[in-house]
Amino acid sequence: MNFYSDNTATATPQVLAAIAAANRGPAASYGDDAWSARLDEAFGQWFGHPVRAFAVATGTAANALALGTLTPPWGQVFCSEQSHVANDECGAVELQTGGARLTPLPCSAGLLQADVLSDWLADHHVSVHSVQPASVSITQASECGTVYRPADIASIARVGRQHGLKVHMDGARFANALVSLGTTPAELTWKAGVDVLSFGATKNGALGAEAVVFFDTALAADFELRRKRAAHLFSKMRYLSAQLLACLEGDAFLQNAARANALAARIGAAAGTRLLYPVQANSAFLRFAPGEKEALRARGCGFHDWGPPRENAARFVVSWDQPESDVDALCEALA
Amino acid sequence: MNFYSDNTATATPQVLAAIAAANRGPAASYGDDAWSARLDEAFGQWFGHPVRAFAVATGTAANALALGTLTPPWGQVFCSEQSHVANDECGAVELQTGGARLTPLPCSAGLLQADVLSDWLADHHVSVHSVQPASVSITQASECGTVYRPADIASIARVGRQHGLKVHMDGARFANALVSLGTTPAELTWKAGVDVLSFGATKNGALGAEAVVFFDTALAADFELRRKRAAHLFSKMRYLSAQLLACLEGDAFLQNAARANALAARIGAAAGTRLLYPVQANSAFLRFAPGEKEALRARGCGFHDWGPPRENAARFVVSWDQPESDVDALCEALA
Amino acid sequence: MNFYSDNTATATPQVLAAIAAANRGPAASYGDDAWSARLDEAFGQWFGHPVRAFAVATGTAANALALGTLTPPWGQVFCSEQSHVANDECGAVELQTGGARLTPLPCSAGLLQADVLSDWLADHHVSVHSVQPASVSITQASECGTVYRPADIASIARVGRQHGLKVHMDGARFANALVSLGTTPAELTWKAGVDVLSFGATKNGALGAEAVVFFDTALAADFELRRKRAAHLFSKMRYLSAQLLACLEGDAFLQNAARANALAARIGAAAGTRLLYPVQANSAFLRFAPGEKEALRARGCGFHDWGPPRENAARFVVSWDQPESDVDALCEALA
Amino acid sequence: MNFYSDNTATATPQVLAAIAAANRGPAASYGDDAWSARLDEAFGQWFGHPVRAFAVATGTAANALALGTLTPPWGQVFCSEQSHVANDECGAVELQTGGARLTPLPCSAGLLQADVLSDWLADHHVSVHSVQPASVSITQASECGTVYRPADIASIARVGRQHGLKVHMDGARFANALVSLGTTPAELTWKAGVDVLSFGATKNGALGAEAVVFFDTALAADFELRRKRAAHLFSKMRYLSAQLLACLEGDAFLQNAARANALAARIGAAAGTRLLYPVQANSAFLRFAPGEKEALRARGCGFHDWGPPRENAARFVVSWDQPESDVDALCEALA
Repeated sequence: MNFYSDNTATATPQVLAAIAAANRGPAASYGDDAWSARLDEAFGQWFGHPVRAFAVATGTAANALALGTLTPPWGQVFCSEQSHVANDECGAVELQTGGARLTPLPCSAGLLQADVLSDWLADHHVSVHSVQPASVSITQASECGTVYRPADIASIARVGRQHGLKVHMDGARFANALVSLGTTPAELTWKAGVDVLSFGATKNGALGAEAVVFFDTALAADFELRRKRAAHLFSKMRYLSAQLLACLEGDAFLQNAARANALAARIGAAAGTRLLYPVQANSAFLRFAPGEKEALRARGCGFHDWGPPRENAARFVVSWDQPESDVDALCEALA
Repeated sequence: MNFYSDNTATATPQVLAAIAAANRGPAASYGDDAWSARLDEAFGQWFGHPVRAFAVATGTAANALALGTLTPPWGQVFCSEQSHVANDECGAVELQTGGARLTPLPCSAGLLQADVLSDWLADHHVSVHSVQPASVSITQASECGTVYRPADIASIARVGRQHGLKVHMDGARFANALVSLGTTPAELTWKAGVDVLSFGATKNGALGAEAVVFFDTALAADFELRRKRAAHLFSKMRYLSAQLLACLEGDAFLQNAARANALAARIGAAAGTRLLYPVQANSAFLRFAPGEKEALRARGCGFHDWGPPRENAARFVVSWDQPESDVDALCEALA
Repeated sequence: MNFYSDNTATATPQVLAAIAAANRGPAASYGDDAWSARLDEAFGQWFGHPVRAFAVATGTAANALALGTLTPPWGQVFCSEQSHVANDECGAVELQTGGARLTPLPCSAGLLQADVLSDWLADHHVSVHSVQPASVSITQASECGTVYRPADIASIARVGRQHGLKVHMDGARFANALVSLGTTPAELTWKAGVDVLSFGATKNGALGAEAVVFFDTALAADFELRRKRAAHLFSKMRYLSAQLLACLEGDAFLQNAARANALAARIGAAAGTRLLYPVQANSAFLRFAPGEKEALRARGCGFHDWGPPRENAARFVVSWDQPESDVDALCEALA
Repeated sequence: MNFYSDNTATATPQVLAAIAAANRGPAASYGDDAWSARLDEAFGQWFGHPVRAFAVATGTAANALALGTLTPPWGQVFCSEQSHVANDECGAVELQTGGARLTPLPCSAGLLQADVLSDWLADHHVSVHSVQPASVSITQASECGTVYRPADIASIARVGRQHGLKVHMDGARFANALVSLGTTPAELTWKAGVDVLSFGATKNGALGAEAVVFFDTALAADFELRRKRAAHLFSKMRYLSAQLLACLEGDAFLQNAARANALAARIGAAAGTRLLYPVQANSAFLRFAPGEKEALRARGCGFHDWGPPRENAARFVVSWDQPESDVDALCEALA
């Protein structure tokens, strides 16, 4: 019973097959290969909008490089206080922006609220003395396993637009949000005002591949230089691009996300009053009575603690390849 | 009636005289002059402790360079949500630390509370994924015109020490705090656990001179390189050092601070229930009824708004050279 | 006939098999997996010395992160004027060092000479005004397909040591140098004074995996934070580590390098007086008469130009999986 | 006999008087004062061209901040191998550009040659792998006491323009060059293609004041944020601006430069065959026979060694306030 993270999952057969298929004979290096050349079109079709799409290998690289294009060194990035960019990237955003400021704002079940952002901006005077509001980053699905509806995103983007902010979406679990909402990739992104997306594949079955997708393609002007300078331009880029193409083709990618969501929903249902946030993607967050966590761990259940120790909470993430028996056992234990 | 800032004040006769006295004949450049050579000893005597003291020209330079020595690029600096380093330096700390994170914490009347820091540290797990707690910066006197007592500083330093944090004090208005508390420079700094101080002179009558004072002299190892690289090593450094020496010698420096404090106290007394924070240094913060600010301004009174617009508050700072008649007029208007 | 780069090569069967073998069931993320846990020991055995070894995905990441640990932001990195770190990494070293200076020095057939470094250091006064000499980086095999003998490395390291420089080796083609010299990994590295090595696997048959190997393990203190902040800590790190372990185990890795070297030697022999540098690894550099390059390309031979256009030179790199018929055809064309 | 540097000089009476005159009553802080408000117009008139002009306190700040506006983090700055920006600023340019590359080129008597720059650019291929040529910086008067004629500057600017480079002039000794050439400020700057100038006042009699003057005012867009973030926005900015205005008004500034030039010319004439470079500004560079430097120092003559020790050369800089008797004595000793 391993519920630590969807990062502990394996790669899908489709991804491994795509790598093997790409492994035949020489291919131009540093992204001049046939697979990489197809990214713009493949992502453009998936999203129904012209895009520039760039492969990178980690979600942190995608986020930090994307925010680097949106935020000058003296800029300010708004995000939720639960956000991965603020809490789990060891200053990667600061590195790639040249020292910009992350301003985490209070959130509701992991979701940044448009009015919280709006109030902050109304309350704070901008001058040469302050860092300059430049961008807002939201995570879809959020770090609390919840999702932004298209209207939520549009509200945030509208506030941002009024104050000159560009909108970034950290889509490390974009597939989970997409199937949860039953909407289209377009409705969750450019139609709602997203300028650039970190498209996540690794957590949902890639070996290690993410894409930075620019809906506002003018913003991509320096991206290739930024990626190279960050050492994220792979010499054998074909293997990253092939993984991404494999995710966009066929149904497996979204089916895997749906399966994980469904299993997480079962945990949420079994959690009862322990449930901390609504289960809307592939993870469930529970607050326990004293001793309960220890008992679960004694039964071989692996998971991470969540939040301040006094909360006695925990996070359970379901992977695409999670054995159903894991969920059966956890639900039984929770019952 | 100009209460905008003590930055609008002139330089004292002592400071100008010191510059004129230093302006006789050639002197070695870049800090190899006789005035700069005396800084360590002069500050060491003033503080009763061996120090390394370095002249810089702005408070922001002092703060950012000081924090740069205490905080790696992946480090985290704790400060109050009212702090100058977070709100008024346009990312200078981020620049000089190479991209460290400032984490503003809730404060009480501008003062960071030791238990707030302690709780934050207890609630947040540190790992390779997070920025690394490295330093805490407190402002004395605070941005709200209040002061930390030696015991307050010691409490913060104690929490810091337990978590490996170095302690920085932004002493842009150190003189005002010192005379307010009637204590010694030693008791407010190294005896209470401060590792490095930004010693302010500009607001209290210098043309433009501050000192970075290291009580833990080992921390100063790279400081000269940092200062040079930040373009804050002056070729004619004698003129900065002479200003600082003039502040440490004689009584004028502390008398000026005491005078400004006393005048601010009169404003506080006149403010009545409008008073937002206790007046403990040279500024007073008032919350107004609708129309009152406009009325004051119509009478020729200059001041900055304070905080969110909905608060309808304002800041009144008394300078060392403030005409007493300004305060008379303001108090009368407030009555 | 593709002689563009060994970066255009496929991955070896061993590497793909290792990835497939690692793809069974969940594994702890972010390097807490069983494969990553073995890196220190596996590299330690290979080199006959205790090491800290860290997987990254690109050679540029390895170089820039390694130099970041050796060089402060105000530091200076010496390298050859032909070096990859200076010419082909778009400022990655500057990014990861926080702005250090690369100083390319004249070289001989791609090899930095100890006396050139020594003379530079003797001729340049170091003060607070200058960047501070901090490290030297040499490439093995060099960018010109030549190799440093152990004694050459030791001479450079000795000069470096006298001036407080740490020694980095860019071993993107370390395997090719190793088999070329018929020496041991130890003799080419720590025994000769190398502090940290960028161990290359990608060019010699990995999908995308390199290791930063610290022989002076104290230098590795902050490496994990640096790697995470640079977005090079992979969530599914097992797949990188498994590739590296596959290279260290068995004979294929060195046999592949030896094969490529032998084929390059054939090109060198066929080149005659066109040869620009001695062929000591897996590449050959030729200077052509007018029209010759065009003729080769017309026959379907792919390669990169080398050096200034007026030189009319070209680089031919042999990959581990290069068809022997490519070399036959090229040699015939050159004859 | 102090010939160490014009940085060892005092401030002029005019500068001190201007500071005293500015020291009457409160003035708005952070550059919102009446003196700073006049800079654009005053410099615009002096140069005969609309400009944006910003006061900073050190030449290194002027250079690094100016180059920061011209050069992205992945950019490349061309300069002479003798340049102050490369040799004497401890990486300040790297800091303010966010890690750009300085590429020092061979020069002739301190002067960068247009064809050397042109050849370099022709010989080096630019791609995503390389740093990106962005700017060229020339020093007027040069670090070797020589000057660029307007046509020389125009040639460099023309080459730069062809390759997309912006042109920066380090005018730490701009006044000395101006009077040496007997030309106008306009001819030496915007008419010859200079985009931004570091206008030096400190070496020629200010306490500590320089200006960054943008002839291409669009480039100044972010300058105020850059300056603040670099901690070079002074709270009492009036004192810097007043110094600069004092230099532009009246004849003293140029007369002082002319006097220093004339005295340096006398040294040059006395130097005979020892002369290393033509004396075109306020310094002379001499190569000595063994023992001569020691003899000079024994007579109480202070100066800095120049270049590699084996050259046995030295630099003699004449300050605006240099006693004529110093020059008499030096010339006599050289005879």
